[in-house]
Amino acid sequence: MLDDLDKLSNIGKTPEGGVSRLAFSKPDLETRAWFKARVADAGLDFEQDGAGNLFGTLPCANPEAKTILAGSHLDSVPNGGRFDGPLGVLSTLEALRTIKEAGVSLPVHLQCVSFSDEEGTWIRLMGSRAFAGKLTEASLAAESALTAGELEDVGGGPDRFAAALDGAGISTDSLLNAQCDPKRYVGFIEVHIEQGPRLEEADLNIGVVTEILGIRWQWLRFIGEAAHAAGKPMALRKDALWGVSDFILRAKALVESEFPPGVMNCGQAQIKPETFNIVPAEVRLALEIRHRSPEQMEEMQRQLMALAKASAEEYRLKLEIEPVGYVPPAPLDEGVVDLIQQAATDLRLKHTRLTCFAGHDTQTLSALMPSAMYFVPSVDGVSHNPKEFTKPEDVVNAANVMVHTMLGWAKKLVDG
Amino acid sequence: MLDDLDKLSNIGKTPEGGVSRLAFSKPDLETRAWFKARVADAGLDFEQDGAGNLFGTLPCANPEAKTILAGSHLDSVPNGGRFDGPLGVLSTLEALRTIKEAGVSLPVHLQCVSFSDEEGTWIRLMGSRAFAGKLTEASLAAESALTAGELEDVGGGPDRFAAALDGAGISTDSLLNAQCDPKRYVGFIEVHIEQGPRLEEADLNIGVVTEILGIRWQWLRFIGEAAHAAGKPMALRKDALWGVSDFILRAKALVESEFPPGVMNCGQAQIKPETFNIVPAEVRLALEIRHRSPEQMEEMQRQLMALAKASAEEYRLKLEIEPVGYVPPAPLDEGVVDLIQQAATDLRLKHTRLTCFAGHDTQTLSALMPSAMYFVPSVDGVSHNPKEFTKPEDVVNAANVMVHTMLGWAKKLVDG
Repeated sequence: MLDDLDKLSNIGKTPEGGVSRLAFSKPDLETRAWFKARVADAGLDFEQDGAGNLFGTLPCANPEAKTILAGSHLDSVPNGGRFDGPLGVLSTLEALRTIKEAGVSLPVHLQCVSFSDEEGTWIRLMGSRAFAGKLTEASLAAESALTAGELEDVGGGPDRFAAALDGAGISTDSLLNAQCDPKRYVGFIEVHIEQGPRLEEADLNIGVVTEILGIRWQWLRFIGEAAHAAGKPMALRKDALWGVSDFILRAKALVESEFPPGVMNCGQAQIKPETFNIVPAEVRLALEIRHRSPEQMEEMQRQLMALAKASAEEYRLKLEIEPVGYVPPAPLDEGVVDLIQQAATDLRLKHTRLTCFAGHDTQTLSALMPSAMYFVPSVDGVSHNPKEFTKPEDVVNAANVMVHTMLGWAKKLVDG
Repeated sequence: MLDDLDKLSNIGKTPEGGVSRLAFSKPDLETRAWFKARVADAGLDFEQDGAGNLFGTLPCANPEAKTILAGSHLDSVPNGGRFDGPLGVLSTLEALRTIKEAGVSLPVHLQCVSFSDEEGTWIRLMGSRAFAGKLTEASLAAESALTAGELEDVGGGPDRFAAALDGAGISTDSLLNAQCDPKRYVGFIEVHIEQGPRLEEADLNIGVVTEILGIRWQWLRFIGEAAHAAGKPMALRKDALWGVSDFILRAKALVESEFPPGVMNCGQAQIKPETFNIVPAEVRLALEIRHRSPEQMEEMQRQLMALAKASAEEYRLKLEIEPVGYVPPAPLDEGVVDLIQQAATDLRLKHTRLTCFAGHDTQTLSALMPSAMYFVPSVDGVSHNPKEFTKPEDVVNAANVMVHTMLGWAKKLVDG
């Protein structure tokens, strides 16, 4: 498996030692062919669905049995790391190989999946959302136009998205009809690098994710009036930056006092015009909020929008909201979390439960079937970066926990 | 005089009907030759000093007499208006012609001046600052490099500034030694278009400027720490935008309550990094402050810097100040203001006293000799724009007030 990881890191390798495998780019297509060959080498059944998701299945004796699904993704961000995604797919592949070699007879099929375009070169979490039947024609058009325009090595022309899909043997039609039958599945497991320093700092081997935070992105446009900084008395100004400053401080206080452990961030503020002596006529503020609870997330959003309106009114500004995106909070399955923790305990690994802040395919799958995920440490918490590194022993732990979780789950199905 | 204005507006004329006469560009050199010929036509004595400032003098009988200086500038910003500058020079030239033709015997010389590069193609207020002995080699190097790099039609090469000066028959040496002897002068008068709508809105003919506001530009760099918006608890963040928001609101309150009629403006805020999910590590905030009183200006600056320090400390940020520029407040001479008002009254023009927000050569001259300036209306307050327009009757008023102010001042010198 370490050899697999090593070989894979040569596909789309960048001068800095990272990888660029944007979904449906040449390196991604090469990766897909490579993965198909690995599945065949392992004696598993290969399959590709309408979304370009790749599957390797270890069938059990009973064709009517359900399936335990596990995996992650093989695409990357531009000049990203070698572990983000592949660790999960290859740990699962290794688990299936190990279980197959052991000749164990199971009451379920085991299936390894690599989801398409997790990183959103075209559409964020595209493969898992298609698999969950959550993609619509409208969202497809909006989202693929949004991101792909910036990329150079994924084809060109007005029909770039369709052309890109075509390269992988899929179409927008097949993509929109890739929904799986969830009744065929027992559940889903994903292992991923942590993308943060918590496990490393606490000297732990495994972090079992109990929930993935919901996230909402939006632009708040505070609109005032440009004026000469000396010509217009301060009391008569409609200074958009004053209203924004007021909102930021009040929003911070609100989220900290009323919505822990929810968080907010204002990471961008675009000012028009942008010059020393003109009163800001407009500020476009980036607001990101996160929460673990779907209800609290909604209530936090409601109160923050009321606050933005109040700040705007106090400074005699207009307010416009531009939604950007929303991923609902995903509480993960307590039973699957327990199975992973039991596997880690059996392997004498130090483990903890934690909250996940970033988006993963598990988020999509959790709405569909019992799902959970776990992390192994990422040195210095680095990810989406050529310096991303996970130690060989942690890679081995990832695969071992996958084997034990799958076997534990299978045993639980028998025991009932 | 209206004919002069008309002819001059053909030099450097732009397709939009404005003028581009950047200092020392070809159109500016053509303007200089044109002005020299007008001075000769008027029978006045022409002179050019080491800064390329152009003078036309109407001498009186006594060679030992002092001089009343008046004028403005003939250069423009790119695609600027026809009146900003020329109105003052040509009104003064017209006044000297009128007085000369009237054959009045005066106890003073009268001198019309056109200062070089008022608009700062190379160095802001260059001619008047050289005339006042306020230019140093260091400021020359720093400022000329700062602005001229962006211009295309003023020559090229590493010695662009020296080459540009050379075209007008001057050198950096002569520029640095152009200081006048202020004892030779009685004082200075400038007439200019208003560059704002106050006179037009109040249906007035003349605005006599009692003071030019001081102005200070600076960048405040609030430095915190980048962090993932979900990974770092809000209570542990060092969010530079929080500190900046706090500073903006406190600075606003301070200036409004403690320093009227002083004003402040934050017109730019540059955030790093600039993304939804990263806590702002740094915000570079543009702070501009203005005041009429030199003492209050200093005190306001002191208190604002203390406030910035306090906001930075409260949010655990570092603070760095980058000074950009400072022009001290210029209270104008009460005696000259009275003379101009008396002239306007004698001419039955509706006039008022007002504060000037923008920089003018008068600002430099006021530190050197009794100085004042007055405005005539600018339609819709437009300036630095091809649409800039001042009505012929207001142009005539400008020249008439100049004649009467000069004669009133001369009479006052005799009366003692």
